[in-house]
Amino acid sequence: MIHAAILAGGRGQRLWPKSRKSLPKHLLPLIGEKTMIQETVGRLKGVAPEENIYIVTEEGQQEIIAGQLPDVPGSNILIEPEGRNTAASIGLAAVHMEKKDPDGVMISLHSDNWVGDVETFRRILRDSCEVAERTGGLGTVGIAPTYAATGFGYIHTGRKLDVDLATTFWEGRKFVEKPDLATAERYVSSGEYFWNGGMFIWRISSILDAIRQHMPDLYEGCRAIRDSLGSDSEKEEVARVYGGLEKVPIDRGVMEKADNIFVAKGDFPWDDVGTWASIENHFPADAKGNVVIGEFEEVDSENCIIVGDETLITTVGVSNLIVVKTKDALLICRKERAEEVRDLVAKLADSDKFRKHL
Amino acid sequence: MIHAAILAGGRGQRLWPKSRKSLPKHLLPLIGEKTMIQETVGRLKGVAPEENIYIVTEEGQQEIIAGQLPDVPGSNILIEPEGRNTAASIGLAAVHMEKKDPDGVMISLHSDNWVGDVETFRRILRDSCEVAERTGGLGTVGIAPTYAATGFGYIHTGRKLDVDLATTFWEGRKFVEKPDLATAERYVSSGEYFWNGGMFIWRISSILDAIRQHMPDLYEGCRAIRDSLGSDSEKEEVARVYGGLEKVPIDRGVMEKADNIFVAKGDFPWDDVGTWASIENHFPADAKGNVVIGEFEEVDSENCIIVGDETLITTVGVSNLIVVKTKDALLICRKERAEEVRDLVAKLADSDKFRKHL
Repeated sequence: MIHAAILAGGRGQRLWPKSRKSLPKHLLPLIGEKTMIQETVGRLKGVAPEENIYIVTEEGQQEIIAGQLPDVPGSNILIEPEGRNTAASIGLAAVHMEKKDPDGVMISLHSDNWVGDVETFRRILRDSCEVAERTGGLGTVGIAPTYAATGFGYIHTGRKLDVDLATTFWEGRKFVEKPDLATAERYVSSGEYFWNGGMFIWRISSILDAIRQHMPDLYEGCRAIRDSLGSDSEKEEVARVYGGLEKVPIDRGVMEKADNIFVAKGDFPWDDVGTWASIENHFPADAKGNVVIGEFEEVDSENCIIVGDETLITTVGVSNLIVVKTKDALLICRKERAEEVRDLVAKLADSDKFRKHL
Repeated sequence: MIHAAILAGGRGQRLWPKSRKSLPKHLLPLIGEKTMIQETVGRLKGVAPEENIYIVTEEGQQEIIAGQLPDVPGSNILIEPEGRNTAASIGLAAVHMEKKDPDGVMISLHSDNWVGDVETFRRILRDSCEVAERTGGLGTVGIAPTYAATGFGYIHTGRKLDVDLATTFWEGRKFVEKPDLATAERYVSSGEYFWNGGMFIWRISSILDAIRQHMPDLYEGCRAIRDSLGSDSEKEEVARVYGGLEKVPIDRGVMEKADNIFVAKGDFPWDDVGTWASIENHFPADAKGNVVIGEFEEVDSENCIIVGDETLITTVGVSNLIVVKTKDALLICRKERAEEVRDLVAKLADSDKFRKHL
């Protein structure tokens, strides 16, 4: 059986002021009418049944997630006592799945990404599950890059695999972190590098085995949690284990070290919707290049991204600005500096006066 | 006796979205705790008694003005059925004053300007009233220019008058309209040109006589209104007269044509607070040159003017922006284009959807 872990631990800080501590990015309908996590779960239709979908999240989001995902069993919403990055989240999900179906296959996805061609996405996931089942390898989807992005990690592919499926597969050679622009350009023109979109496919037993090899402390924690599942001490045990875990992404903790990686060619439009700048890829622009959600009037203003509410937003003589207005906060940011919203959020977190706006 | 007309017919369009049709600039506390019109009336203490102060305004503002100026008699709030520019407003005030005190002196001031040195301002007005009374001339205060402004008209002065008062007076040679920058620079370096701040001082009889000479239609209207004052037909008569009047400023209708102009040297800080850009002259800037009213946090942003409410305003990587936030509207404007807020307001006025925000 196919199971899926949806990692819903992100804060979406660069999407402040819409994305908030109490209602982060994945719980928002940033693109379209459904929230990002609803889209993510809906995208798995025909791949994994809802009773096999697990959401890994934090205390405080449980109720909202249950409300947004009525078809996912409440017991599949797994609560992390604190965020310990993706290796821990995947380990936690894996032991839950293992208990239910030790021979199963697992998909791990972020809860807050966008996919443009859902049918292709589903086919690639299904084919990847098939390859994971057959080979016992650790699979990932390499997104075909459309530009020399410096904001994503890359996966270097090797030999093409001889597989009788519609999807193209390669041996994985190396996971590499976010490159500088020159390196990114080299990667993209080589044709051998793909974006790491944080999508993984493996047998449940394969990932637990890989964690045992490459992250023995985490493995030990996973075993302890596994033994406590369903008992009175489960919550306590999870808290104890998490208290001692390093914050390590699965990419660095396992995938960079493993030698049994395979890569599925992800030739579908994909976006991590990481910053406000990415919003303009998902909405039509007006004649002056302004992308507008909400009420807007301007004089001689162009190439702006306007995300408003019922407030009338107006501009005079500006260009390349991001403007985001919510009930209690307003962001005005140069488009090319959308990453730095993270620095602003850090400043607000340090401020006794403004922390309430996070 | 000294009387004063306070012209409160302006819309303050360039100060949108704070300045609104229903609560325009002069009724707002833009600088300090009192509203602009309260400041204007307060500035006349020791010059004209409150019972001699007349406010010329529009239907709809009467109650708010009466509330803001409890010491000005309600009957001194004169309602224009529609704005017909300053010549008409001054004519209307003059006939009210004439009825009460035909030998009196009249001061005319805008309701929405800022004065930095109130004691000097008062002395100059008192001295100007003295000269007006003695000579029967039409007086104005020429503001000593501090830079080559292109946003104000200028007054060209001639021969210095031999007057035994603390204030310096010249013969007025010419009123000139807003110049281009080169001309403004020439004016300022000549030492003979002063800013026209729209402050006038004359005998009531002198201005009515000048209107008779230079604007006979307006004079006829003034006479008709004068005859109706206190009668049942007063309101009707004012409406009839106003319906036929041209929109002419007193500067062009009278002062440019008269040959008995005198100019008092206005050596006090003055500002018409015409645009949001002028706000930064009245508030301290932070270390990065940002002038902030309200709640503000930024990353690498400088020389901005931030006028907010309880909403947290944040910026990342921007400079020289004006940001004004009110309950229902937001303005983001390049500082050097603050005049163009007028164009934005015109666009809003043309919009069925957005007109409500004016």
